[in-house]
Amino acid sequence: MTEKQPPTSSRQELRKARTRAKLLRSTLKLVSERGTSAIVVSEITEEADVGTGTFYNYFSSIDDILEVAAHESMEYLGAALDRSVSQMEDPAEVWSGSLRHVVRYALAEQVWGWFFVNIGAAHPALMSTFGPRARRDLQRGVDEGRFSIDDVDLAVACAFGALSAAVERGLTNPETADTDQRYAKAMLQMVGIAPSEAAQVAAYPLPELDIGDKEMLAAKPII
Amino acid sequence: MTEKQPPTSSRQELRKARTRAKLLRSTLKLVSERGTSAIVVSEITEEADVGTGTFYNYFSSIDDILEVAAHESMEYLGAALDRSVSQMEDPAEVWSGSLRHVVRYALAEQVWGWFFVNIGAAHPALMSTFGPRARRDLQRGVDEGRFSIDDVDLAVACAFGALSAAVERGLTNPETADTDQRYAKAMLQMVGIAPSEAAQVAAYPLPELDIGDKEMLAAKPII
Repeated sequence: MTEKQPPTSSRQELRKARTRAKLLRSTLKLVSERGTSAIVVSEITEEADVGTGTFYNYFSSIDDILEVAAHESMEYLGAALDRSVSQMEDPAEVWSGSLRHVVRYALAEQVWGWFFVNIGAAHPALMSTFGPRARRDLQRGVDEGRFSIDDVDLAVACAFGALSAAVERGLTNPETADTDQRYAKAMLQMVGIAPSEAAQVAAYPLPELDIGDKEMLAAKPII
Repeated sequence: MTEKQPPTSSRQELRKARTRAKLLRSTLKLVSERGTSAIVVSEITEEADVGTGTFYNYFSSIDDILEVAAHESMEYLGAALDRSVSQMEDPAEVWSGSLRHVVRYALAEQVWGWFFVNIGAAHPALMSTFGPRARRDLQRGVDEGRFSIDDVDLAVACAFGALSAAVERGLTNPETADTDQRYAKAMLQMVGIAPSEAAQVAAYPLPELDIGDKEMLAAKPII
């Protein structure tokens, strides 16, 4: 072993992280193709090219790996959203920008996009990752008198339900351009922005999504 | 046989219709409790209290009965909506009234409500039954200059995704009153109605849903 190589323990850690990521990525792929029902452990391990027993070194069940795959991929995207919209001052721009980024990401990374559609808008991982962020951004708009929302939690639920529908429509109609802007305009109107201004805000130039340290992505399921 | 009794053939027809309805109702119940995955024929026939083989006299598979249960229950509700909002002149009132009726129905008839949530907003039956109605009502609002929608199909998809989310939220938070009005207000804003007017329209007194001939309901799965 030369000095350049990591010590055995950290090489082991890295190998474990890679196997875990392979299992998660295989799960995303299978769910994106077939939905969450009737997936069995051996399909995931075959897709990941590891022994069936290996699965249980990392996850306790199909439900467990589904939950982790959903939570980690969304949390990672949620953190990227936070960085990407943190410079924006207008709550309407933050709301529009965040929603557009998720739609764009889902349409560009179609495995994740179909995974997102197939787990459904009511999946707990959606509420635990994007939920608090959406609530925060909507509440800020209400507090600043920018949005008109009676029930922030219902608005979040409606926006996520609509998000899932918009992503599915974008994936099945790839010829339709600007799905992100059309969806954002509808969601801006939903929170009380007038149509002409909603069209304007939804069409703002959108900075690239700050997806974070590429070096860190090896173990992340969403890449 | 007295003259008051129906002839044998129509009694047979009636018995068949009842068995079919029992199978459909059992399917609604199982899906409402557990979602669509991992349901098997024997569970449906057990719930319906008929022999397992009987199932195949009426349906070819689980997918078949799910499709029929979704389509028939929604088509029946859709026809009731048409009758109930046909007197309304303002497209905003039609849109709001239809959406409020579906939410109210789903929260009152909870087996159907959970069935609706569990099959998902992207289910083809939703698009084939409520889809054309929603598209018609939104297009009328656009044509009359009442709504501001760039993409009617996307607005329909968003409204259905949001509907599923709103119903689930209403079912899991029964203490929240007026879910139908809050949802309708958000959906009126989404199509471009200003917040103050949206609040007003969403709170209009809503006539009872005209659920049709009660005599005809015996064979209908939604009752």
